[in-house]
Amino acid sequence: MHRLAFEKIEEILFDILKNHDFSEKRARLIAKTHTQSSCDGVYSHGLNRFPLFMDYVERGWIDVTAEPERVGSFGALERWDGKLAPGVSNAHHCTERAIELAREHTLGCVALRNTNHWMRGGTYGWQAAEEGKIALCFTNTKPNMPPWGGRENRIGNNPFVIAIPRKKGHVVLDMATSQFSFGKINTYKLKNESLPFAGGWDKEGNLTKNPEKILATGQAVPAGYWKGSALTMVLDMLAALLSAGKPTHEIDDNKEVGICQVFICIDPEKFSNRDLKDQLLDDIISYVHDVPARKQGDRTFYPGEQTLATRNDHLENGIPVSESVWEAIMGLS
Amino acid sequence: MHRLAFEKIEEILFDILKNHDFSEKRARLIAKTHTQSSCDGVYSHGLNRFPLFMDYVERGWIDVTAEPERVGSFGALERWDGKLAPGVSNAHHCTERAIELAREHTLGCVALRNTNHWMRGGTYGWQAAEEGKIALCFTNTKPNMPPWGGRENRIGNNPFVIAIPRKKGHVVLDMATSQFSFGKINTYKLKNESLPFAGGWDKEGNLTKNPEKILATGQAVPAGYWKGSALTMVLDMLAALLSAGKPTHEIDDNKEVGICQVFICIDPEKFSNRDLKDQLLDDIISYVHDVPARKQGDRTFYPGEQTLATRNDHLENGIPVSESVWEAIMGLS
Repeated sequence: MHRLAFEKIEEILFDILKNHDFSEKRARLIAKTHTQSSCDGVYSHGLNRFPLFMDYVERGWIDVTAEPERVGSFGALERWDGKLAPGVSNAHHCTERAIELAREHTLGCVALRNTNHWMRGGTYGWQAAEEGKIALCFTNTKPNMPPWGGRENRIGNNPFVIAIPRKKGHVVLDMATSQFSFGKINTYKLKNESLPFAGGWDKEGNLTKNPEKILATGQAVPAGYWKGSALTMVLDMLAALLSAGKPTHEIDDNKEVGICQVFICIDPEKFSNRDLKDQLLDDIISYVHDVPARKQGDRTFYPGEQTLATRNDHLENGIPVSESVWEAIMGLS
Repeated sequence: MHRLAFEKIEEILFDILKNHDFSEKRARLIAKTHTQSSCDGVYSHGLNRFPLFMDYVERGWIDVTAEPERVGSFGALERWDGKLAPGVSNAHHCTERAIELAREHTLGCVALRNTNHWMRGGTYGWQAAEEGKIALCFTNTKPNMPPWGGRENRIGNNPFVIAIPRKKGHVVLDMATSQFSFGKINTYKLKNESLPFAGGWDKEGNLTKNPEKILATGQAVPAGYWKGSALTMVLDMLAALLSAGKPTHEIDDNKEVGICQVFICIDPEKFSNRDLKDQLLDDIISYVHDVPARKQGDRTFYPGEQTLATRNDHLENGIPVSESVWEAIMGLS
């Protein structure tokens, strides 16, 4: 593990993308997005994921030059076809459109089909919040989780994001509907530690905290058990219905392309004074921060708080990059 | 426990409400809503809750004749003041408005402040779905759950609802952000059974499955642990911000009035053919239904499926009412 400067990482990713027929603008956006995710501590969808993204590019599963196309416009809602272009540039574009629709109608929604993995969902929450907008975004995925009561992966862990702009630090909730991501489960395995709570099923069909056993079955548990299972099913229905795209069960387990996403934005400047808004958010946060700790050393956080602290640390001291990931990336150039 | 016909229960509640200065129309709506919740198996917010609702009425905490007022109109978003009128009639009215806004703009949002407990959140999901609309609704509550890492109740269990209309049975997700409602925890206590998973904290600050110990501290655990804790915080922020109403920490623990709710509706008829929509939903449901069972006898359900089955049974065979609840209700007349 060593630390590298944001700009250095970004330039190297940019060069790799340029060498693979990405336009300058798109290469810049994608290089910056992956670097930002690692900078924010979401390594799994930042640098660690970059080699897999490039593998999809090299297989021709992602169309690096395709442009998303608006295929329907219905008042405050638009429908776009992602044309299998990169997930990051498609999602960035659709967030921009949802922001525009929110400027026009106070709230707007863009539903996107035939797109690809958006990497870290929080990216689009931060993007909207930087523009002063509230965002609610979600994606479907391939089947990677068993529905409650079943023992095969038939639902996705469909991540969703809710972001609220705030001067002292945006509030950004970015969560998958599984209790732990596979990236997190793998981290516990590498440290030879148990998960703090059951994170999936072993091959005998029992819930377990053992990361190795969960990785062996590939069966993560939904967050909130039956609740996360139900929520994720509804998100898949909405994503496919609003975009007229593919639901989870039509997405190939070994080739996760052509998924659907939804981007809803709200413009708070239409109905609220920025200072009053921030005062409200600060008050809610203070009240929760001030709670007596459950155990000595425990702290409560608002969603996005730890991300911002990590970002600031990494901007000052460099972004930690594992040697093996860095080697894989250098091998792409 | 005996069973009573829907119409009989509804008439008795109607008469009680009429005797307490409710208008005929409002008495009809509230009587029907409470009866429907029990009919759908949500006893905790149906008949069981009616005496507490009437207690709030008798204390003058609910204004039985006040009418909600539109205080802002911003494109596809409206802001309403509930004037402390009954939560059910306010929420019903605002769902109607959100449906209207969705008809006009494809999606619409109503944010409501100074309202009261909406009883069962699913009510408004079913209402929108009956009108062919998709709905996403949420409410804040008094502080009734500790934030993750803290040991005092400082967040609400802010229920939310997502509904999608479907001919063979609407999909309606209706969930609080706690893993178990206090109503459910109490049911386990009465049966002298353990919860299947940790549902809250005991007075030593340990997570426990013992319903009695959780009821003693009043500290339920968020669904998905840190995830539900973060989600509910963001829902409170959105509810208070969009409506310019009170956040959870300003709501009195012993007098839960003046809360906020948000109703977002989408009109799928604007962008999708009804048969194709239903085919998509049926396909997703079939795929999940057909999963091999985790354990013999396990079944998977779509959100709303068990509600509909319960409703059909109760319409045919009567609605189960506990003697003590019925006695309390008869004492109100």
